[in-house]
Amino acid sequence: MAVYTQIGDQELRDFLAGYDVGSLASVIAIAEGVENSNYLLITSRGRFILTLYEKRVRTEDLPYFLGLMEHLSGRGFPCPKPVADRNGRALQQMAGRPAALVTFLDGVWPRRIWPGHCRGLGDALARLHLAGADFAMRRENDLAPGDWLALLARIDRDRTEAYRPGLHCAISDALAGLTSDWPGDLPGGIIHADLFPDNAFFDGESITGIIDFYFSCNDMFAYDVAICLNAWCFEPDGQFNITKARAMLRAYRAVRPFSEAELAALPKLCQGAAMRFLLTRLYDWLNSPEDALVEPKDPLEYWHKLRFHQAVAGPGAYGLD
Amino acid sequence: MAVYTQIGDQELRDFLAGYDVGSLASVIAIAEGVENSNYLLITSRGRFILTLYEKRVRTEDLPYFLGLMEHLSGRGFPCPKPVADRNGRALQQMAGRPAALVTFLDGVWPRRIWPGHCRGLGDALARLHLAGADFAMRRENDLAPGDWLALLARIDRDRTEAYRPGLHCAISDALAGLTSDWPGDLPGGIIHADLFPDNAFFDGESITGIIDFYFSCNDMFAYDVAICLNAWCFEPDGQFNITKARAMLRAYRAVRPFSEAELAALPKLCQGAAMRFLLTRLYDWLNSPEDALVEPKDPLEYWHKLRFHQAVAGPGAYGLD
Repeated sequence: MAVYTQIGDQELRDFLAGYDVGSLASVIAIAEGVENSNYLLITSRGRFILTLYEKRVRTEDLPYFLGLMEHLSGRGFPCPKPVADRNGRALQQMAGRPAALVTFLDGVWPRRIWPGHCRGLGDALARLHLAGADFAMRRENDLAPGDWLALLARIDRDRTEAYRPGLHCAISDALAGLTSDWPGDLPGGIIHADLFPDNAFFDGESITGIIDFYFSCNDMFAYDVAICLNAWCFEPDGQFNITKARAMLRAYRAVRPFSEAELAALPKLCQGAAMRFLLTRLYDWLNSPEDALVEPKDPLEYWHKLRFHQAVAGPGAYGLD
Repeated sequence: MAVYTQIGDQELRDFLAGYDVGSLASVIAIAEGVENSNYLLITSRGRFILTLYEKRVRTEDLPYFLGLMEHLSGRGFPCPKPVADRNGRALQQMAGRPAALVTFLDGVWPRRIWPGHCRGLGDALARLHLAGADFAMRRENDLAPGDWLALLARIDRDRTEAYRPGLHCAISDALAGLTSDWPGDLPGGIIHADLFPDNAFFDGESITGIIDFYFSCNDMFAYDVAICLNAWCFEPDGQFNITKARAMLRAYRAVRPFSEAELAALPKLCQGAAMRFLLTRLYDWLNSPEDALVEPKDPLEYWHKLRFHQAVAGPGAYGLD
């Protein structure tokens, strides 16, 4: 839970005076969200989210993120739509930080995942990939395999060994195997790259909103699928749930069919997706201050997922025939 | 900021099925609130706050708090109204904790206080005191002078001295002076006892809602006024703002006039109100775990307020003629 930046009520009214969104009725600081400060604003015209971008989001990337949300919502994809001020600008400054106002989306993110959620997610993910096709801007994935090596180099070996003996060396070995034959020639475009359950709002099994595009970038579509398989299809006890994976992948391919090469690469991509979150979680685990507002997430969860995918023989393990 | 208890979406739907509040559209975990976990629920019928009561609220006091909000809202006072389930019950259990659903109130709490806010607050406070007159239940103030001595005894002397040399002894002296001639025979009834700016919602200078009745109790009305003078009328730099105090007290007495005895007792009551928050803040400051979700508030702010009121000759210092 995190609201890093407090905003004044007068400051907020001054900010909103630049918009055509009606008068302010309520401000609610939102506990959820790890990276930024988020406020729900209720006005006489509707509901909006005000986001103040904290240090982890680079200011130079914000035109891409806001442009992408604008593009996707224009294509009918259910994501927040940036609201422009009276001068046509979506990107602002507030309390010394970059800030933006976007539309609020109804829906509830699932704390407990059912196969129906995975079906809805697979469908939405494929529609996201198609809707991004003609987005003109480009952003490289800055958490790609080349960056994993650099990230591992910044993770203290001794503290990793103290946390889990043998882990640093095992990660190093797995990383060498992954980067040596990382798939390269697969269909790609805009990916979300962080589509965890708390970024997907549902009404029943239907997606009503996908949020938090602040890791989105240009990369392989199937890598986004791999991130979702890891985030949605493992049970809390660590078991992989093939029923959920099958539901997600079938719903996805009904909208955007997989190529043979994508299917063949899926186990490797799933290992890579696990590696990416293992490394960032491990870094955060070892480097979070004692008084951090956000409790760091368990890195070992992703080490176990990586190990699972290393043992997978082919895409059949994910429920595909 | 604090949400101590996470709730599942299915658990929440099961809970709401017991109510006649429509279907769930959104759940927002609220960052603000120190004592309990609060969620904003948006349903097809409106907006509600779901509160899960954490350890600081005693379960046996909840019927009083909920009954009081029911009573006050029935008298037209702008406070949350408990929503009863289909069986007529307002007090529930959820995620192993006592829980209640109340109506949501529009408005924005003032981060920066203007005299107009103090005028609105004084008016609302007097109306609260009058509206509570025929509430049948009773709850003793468990943070009254007798409790301050017990609380001081639980505050470690050595750690207080390390925090601020001389403070423990100075508090002990001030406390002796306060308890020896604490006013007793003043008009009383229901008081809020914790009416800080983040518990008062405004539209402009008009109060739209008073929340957080979880310290409310039966005590002297003027003690509630003293708590508000401390909470609303000091500037961030520690200076007392007599313009704000005058605005608050005049608005109050236009609704409920002060007796001569109340006015004469005001400096002493303000010292006591400062002592009460000094002691709880100091206790929290010295006893909060390193990884506490809520950053403890500065106790010295209230020591300075206590010192200010010790030097006050009479109610004229608060702007009354």
